[in-house]
Amino acid sequence: MKIPVIEIFGPTIQGEGAVIGKKTIFIRTAGCDYQCSWCDSAFTWDGSGKEDITMMNAEEIFRELEKIGLDNFEHVTISGGNPALIKSLSTLIRLLKEKNFKVGLETQGSVWQDWMVEIDDLTISPKPPSSGMKTDFDRLEDILQLLTKRIDNGHVSIKVVIFNDKDLQYAKNVHKKFPAVPFYLQVGNEDLSDESNERLALMLIQKLEWLVSKVVVDPEFNNVRVLPQLHTLLWGNKKGV
Amino acid sequence: MKIPVIEIFGPTIQGEGAVIGKKTIFIRTAGCDYQCSWCDSAFTWDGSGKEDITMMNAEEIFRELEKIGLDNFEHVTISGGNPALIKSLSTLIRLLKEKNFKVGLETQGSVWQDWMVEIDDLTISPKPPSSGMKTDFDRLEDILQLLTKRIDNGHVSIKVVIFNDKDLQYAKNVHKKFPAVPFYLQVGNEDLSDESNERLALMLIQKLEWLVSKVVVDPEFNNVRVLPQLHTLLWGNKKGV
Repeated sequence: MKIPVIEIFGPTIQGEGAVIGKKTIFIRTAGCDYQCSWCDSAFTWDGSGKEDITMMNAEEIFRELEKIGLDNFEHVTISGGNPALIKSLSTLIRLLKEKNFKVGLETQGSVWQDWMVEIDDLTISPKPPSSGMKTDFDRLEDILQLLTKRIDNGHVSIKVVIFNDKDLQYAKNVHKKFPAVPFYLQVGNEDLSDESNERLALMLIQKLEWLVSKVVVDPEFNNVRVLPQLHTLLWGNKKGV
Repeated sequence: MKIPVIEIFGPTIQGEGAVIGKKTIFIRTAGCDYQCSWCDSAFTWDGSGKEDITMMNAEEIFRELEKIGLDNFEHVTISGGNPALIKSLSTLIRLLKEKNFKVGLETQGSVWQDWMVEIDDLTISPKPPSSGMKTDFDRLEDILQLLTKRIDNGHVSIKVVIFNDKDLQYAKNVHKKFPAVPFYLQVGNEDLSDESNERLALMLIQKLEWLVSKVVVDPEFNNVRVLPQLHTLLWGNKKGV
């Protein structure tokens, strides 16, 4: 029942999506069934972070959270990679809930796990064309139907990262399929190598302005929310913040 | 039953608080019982916007919304000044709800109105010491108790703008009094005259980093969310966006 962990960091704030700004601590799992061209955590699957992977059980992870988070957190975010590849996350999620922590998790919606219904803030983040990946819409529909049947919509949201007009069209199709699920559009970060935080922040703000300008004139996007990645505005491409 | 309107603009995105990023259209009412030192809408109460105030009834406001928003909005945000000074907003809120719009509203929590329970996204924004204002905590408690008794907590949130450590202490006290109400800390904009959007954005990101650094090490802030003003990052001090 070991879990492949590649990073644990925080407390910090959630930079994205439905609980943007929320104080949380991150656990990043290794391994992904996707290889998005613009993945900002490619070290979780491209081999470059291989030496940082530690196989940990739930108790070991929890001890590490306590060690770095002290009493400064009550919310834990599990990200990846694709954490939905890991069946044994159920043990960690159960332990966290027993200890009264809230749990957020992000996955692309390509794999179902029963523990998904236990997540307090679950982000389903299907990947648009710019990623180079192809969405299995049947699978995505199955997963979202299972989720929205079994838990309150307030716990699930969809987030699509937008780099260009094609991505926006893709996002519109996804939103139309699941109009009742809270929907977030997120500005993509095109420059994963920029070492100037200031230049990157200003570029992302420009992209946000472009995305807002598209959304405000489109009645099919009346119920969406448009957000930047706060952590990228704050810390650029730095890892572990 | 006329309502003093000083601005109607949008569709744009909500820049702050619980529905940050949400596509909405703004109605700004004139008049305030406060005069916050750093108010970013002082023209609503300091006389400088006097000529822009139009007395409108609900139908007139709705026609104006339709004119500028076409079919590109389903959410309306009422801001001020302090819209809670205006009893007759009930007519507008009723009309908007009849037409199936969702309604957001922001007020400092100094005045009660029965229509508050009709608001979908109600932000109570008590003002910290840096504003120069003094909070009537008895009044604020009465209002929040009325609200949380009569409507689901998901519809009400508290937001405090933070300029300094004293403000943060004030926010902590407010949060302690109402621990069940979703709580947002927002970076204050200290430079309302800066005409360089880029300089202002970078300064606000720095302030956000400061605020995050305070929050992550304080267990009394485990359940808060920390956010910037997106519209200020995007458009600086420009009005009507």
